Amino acid sequence: MPIRVTIWNEFVHEQTNEAVAKLYPGGIHGVVADMLAEQLGDDVQTHTATLDEPQHGLTEEVLDQTDVLTWWGHAAHDRVDDAIVDRVQRRVLQGMGLVCMHSAHASKIFQRMLGTSCMLRWREAAERERIWVVDPSHPIAEGIENEFFELPHTEMYGEFFDIPAPDELIFISWFEGGEVFRSGCVFRRGKGKVFYFRPGHETFPIYYDANVRRVLANGVRYVQPAGARFHGEGRNIPEPLEPIEAEHEVDQSLHE
Amino acid sequence: MPIRVTIWNEFVHEQTNEAVAKLYPGGIHGVVADMLAEQLGDDVQTHTATLDEPQHGLTEEVLDQTDVLTWWGHAAHDRVDDAIVDRVQRRVLQGMGLVCMHSAHASKIFQRMLGTSCMLRWREAAERERIWVVDPSHPIAEGIENEFFELPHTEMYGEFFDIPAPDELIFISWFEGGEVFRSGCVFRRGKGKVFYFRPGHETFPIYYDANVRRVLANGVRYVQPAGARFHGEGRNIPEPLEPIEAEHEVDQSLHE
Amino acid sequence: MPIRVTIWNEFVHEQTNEAVAKLYPGGIHGVVADMLAEQLGDDVQTHTATLDEPQHGLTEEVLDQTDVLTWWGHAAHDRVDDAIVDRVQRRVLQGMGLVCMHSAHASKIFQRMLGTSCMLRWREAAERERIWVVDPSHPIAEGIENEFFELPHTEMYGEFFDIPAPDELIFISWFEGGEVFRSGCVFRRGKGKVFYFRPGHETFPIYYDANVRRVLANGVRYVQPAGARFHGEGRNIPEPLEPIEAEHEVDQSLHE
Amino acid sequence: MPIRVTIWNEFVHEQTNEAVAKLYPGGIHGVVADMLAEQLGDDVQTHTATLDEPQHGLTEEVLDQTDVLTWWGHAAHDRVDDAIVDRVQRRVLQGMGLVCMHSAHASKIFQRMLGTSCMLRWREAAERERIWVVDPSHPIAEGIENEFFELPHTEMYGEFFDIPAPDELIFISWFEGGEVFRSGCVFRRGKGKVFYFRPGHETFPIYYDANVRRVLANGVRYVQPAGARFHGEGRNIPEPLEPIEAEHEVDQSLHE
Repeated sequence: MPIRVTIWNEFVHEQTNEAVAKLYPGGIHGVVADMLAEQLGDDVQTHTATLDEPQHGLTEEVLDQTDVLTWWGHAAHDRVDDAIVDRVQRRVLQGMGLVCMHSAHASKIFQRMLGTSCMLRWREAAERERIWVVDPSHPIAEGIENEFFELPHTEMYGEFFDIPAPDELIFISWFEGGEVFRSGCVFRRGKGKVFYFRPGHETFPIYYDANVRRVLANGVRYVQPAGARFHGEGRNIPEPLEPIEAEHEVDQSLHE
Repeated sequence: MPIRVTIWNEFVHEQTNEAVAKLYPGGIHGVVADMLAEQLGDDVQTHTATLDEPQHGLTEEVLDQTDVLTWWGHAAHDRVDDAIVDRVQRRVLQGMGLVCMHSAHASKIFQRMLGTSCMLRWREAAERERIWVVDPSHPIAEGIENEFFELPHTEMYGEFFDIPAPDELIFISWFEGGEVFRSGCVFRRGKGKVFYFRPGHETFPIYYDANVRRVLANGVRYVQPAGARFHGEGRNIPEPLEPIEAEHEVDQSLHE
Repeated sequence: MPIRVTIWNEFVHEQTNEAVAKLYPGGIHGVVADMLAEQLGDDVQTHTATLDEPQHGLTEEVLDQTDVLTWWGHAAHDRVDDAIVDRVQRRVLQGMGLVCMHSAHASKIFQRMLGTSCMLRWREAAERERIWVVDPSHPIAEGIENEFFELPHTEMYGEFFDIPAPDELIFISWFEGGEVFRSGCVFRRGKGKVFYFRPGHETFPIYYDANVRRVLANGVRYVQPAGARFHGEGRNIPEPLEPIEAEHEVDQSLHE
Repeated sequence: MPIRVTIWNEFVHEQTNEAVAKLYPGGIHGVVADMLAEQLGDDVQTHTATLDEPQHGLTEEVLDQTDVLTWWGHAAHDRVDDAIVDRVQRRVLQGMGLVCMHSAHASKIFQRMLGTSCMLRWREAAERERIWVVDPSHPIAEGIENEFFELPHTEMYGEFFDIPAPDELIFISWFEGGEVFRSGCVFRRGKGKVFYFRPGHETFPIYYDANVRRVLANGVRYVQPAGARFHGEGRNIPEPLEPIEAEHEVDQSLHE
């Protein structure tokens, strides 16, 4: 069965800026759909959703059909409705994968999942980035041929990156201008997994880079739902699994 | 300099239930203040705050004077104002320690810091709990004499406990009725640290137990502010630290 | 392509004890081969190796054909040649998966990979074990229907279990006699992954249990080689990737 | 009570190379002793030990009086006796702190504690290093004023650094020549803690740098013994803590 991916894009820059529109004529959601089709073939089935659709295109029905949600946002994070953020968070905790790309570090959903500000240093200077593999055992690094790969012109993101220590740290970036950054991170939350991948941009052609495409596809595959099948919601279990010595009375009136 | 601790208590049960009032005549905030004074002496200076005070007693001025905030809530989590939760979260990210006790697993602030539901199984059957040390190198276990300590009558909390994998897992509980639980966990978030400790109750005299008192005091000491002094807020760094080859033009109009 | 698994067994108890021989007539390596065939079908191809073979059956040629090595030992850990331990460690760091079963906690290879004593409490009292899932997002828990599964009669292993904090903690066991144990752990080392799974025994029929069989097969699948392709051995890189300002002389005589 | 630190130095380069002798006239052990005295004052009491002493100066008696052992080695790792490595490992598991400095990444004791090759890329080109704080909540970063500090001329160490994911990752280095490195790492092993800190060199005056001195002193303080007091050695516990239903017979003959 193919992985059902919903590709979310705020889809703002493509409509307001000529350079972005020229680079990504089908929108950033379009280039993501293309790369997943290229990399994963019949193993993936994509659907797109954007900010301006009702419920941002993320209705319960759409999420019922979603194994992995990818997220691109940059200029309009604050226009995302909190009720939709609640809904996506719930789905991730129930097992849906989430891939947050580049400037999605500042999205409401990423901040919600992590509990920190997710803020960082940044600079637009078209500088070189070299992405080093620090966990070569990780399936998300599958196919990377060397200790590193390079991107010639990027926006810099630098430490301190205010995130919890990742459960799995896969890539660390070197920047020409002097910074470092934890660029590839997995966070396990509830029954779901979140993959953050730094590279990406609206005017540098990052999403045409072969290594970036490979890593993002690996990430989609990695965060697809897996694991135990139980529900895991909190609940009272009045009947113990094992006998309990009856030597103490409990005032149940306190705990209805 | 003493650690300045603000002890927060929703202070509801003590005023509505006779058994609780009798067990903790000074309120749960009172017993926490007593235990910290007993354990830490002149190294600590405590202040209390409760739900019904203006801003729940957690004004900017109070937090300015707070190194560590301890949290007890049970019956009234939803009455805590979201604006105060925002404020406390910000303070933790800036370095204030947070100790969440027992039923504070379901508090808004704990859920906010962790990004998960923090839900669990529970049972009121006055059963035995045995708390095992799984990280004997940890300062929070300082002074525990044996591989475990016991509490004769407790409310059970059981897995699956919906939290991120703790950065530091110190205790795992065994319950007579058949469950296990990750009972002592540290989470590092921003410049702050959060300690969750399961034992505690409003009618079982858990907070008079010597080991529990010791661990909570260790926890307060452990999460006090420490570390680097920089601010760490996200910001643009237009001037690179190192020279960048000028071979690519950046359209700054996109990034004001 | 199938996963090529080498199933290693010290194969001592089966030849010296009638009860063990009766329970596992094909040896413990036999029951492991059967369970992997049952669970993974054409996705797996197994080979067995035992202590008494030359080089314990773990020649370079055999390891060249091994994606995952499973390890059972109990009575004869100290008869394993250190040179073979060196060899297996090297292979794991280069990407070979390793699954250590039950009493393999005290094997030389497990101690070598972890750097700790790997010691624990134990008891033979045929007690009940209940294995709780604490990471339901983990592929190794795939297919577990409930928050826990049970084994009616087991040897107890209890904390403190002297291992590094696992990179991924999946299961925690509850024991009837009062202990808890971190029963399912993944450790990433070099380009390889190590899965430790506690359940197992030479006289209790643990390896016929459906959940145990499922988890071990999941573990074999999980630790198969994956990730980046580079070699990763230490080496001098005299030519920098980026230009370095020449303002300081280096005395190379010190660093041949 | 002061922290009792034993400063170990292979003490080879200082005796064979004029530049090293001139930079560190009292040996590298001397500069470490000086910096700890400067930073920790009466809170520390130091002792030194070197390779050529009997038992490398690390007798049981010396280790009985040691809270923290610091390790410098570079040219003579293989001359360290395996029996002494066994002894030091045992002490760390029992609670002694260990600080491994710079080229001690390739020491037998570091490799032993971690179970990996600990290999890395390196280059002697006197390049600039910028050390970024990635965990500002960590006591080892105490007193660092900025997001980073710099060293003008260093030997480069680069990823992939073959270590297990650190339990606590505090610093990541940027190098002028294009690499990154996990430069400050804590590993908890048994009841002990190991701090690895990359900066250091025998001909660059790294150990006179104020930030380096501060961090090393913080590290010594951080890894001093703490935590639970139990012994934690593996052992049989024939008497259960809780009653076990007697419905199954155990053949004890297998388990003497």
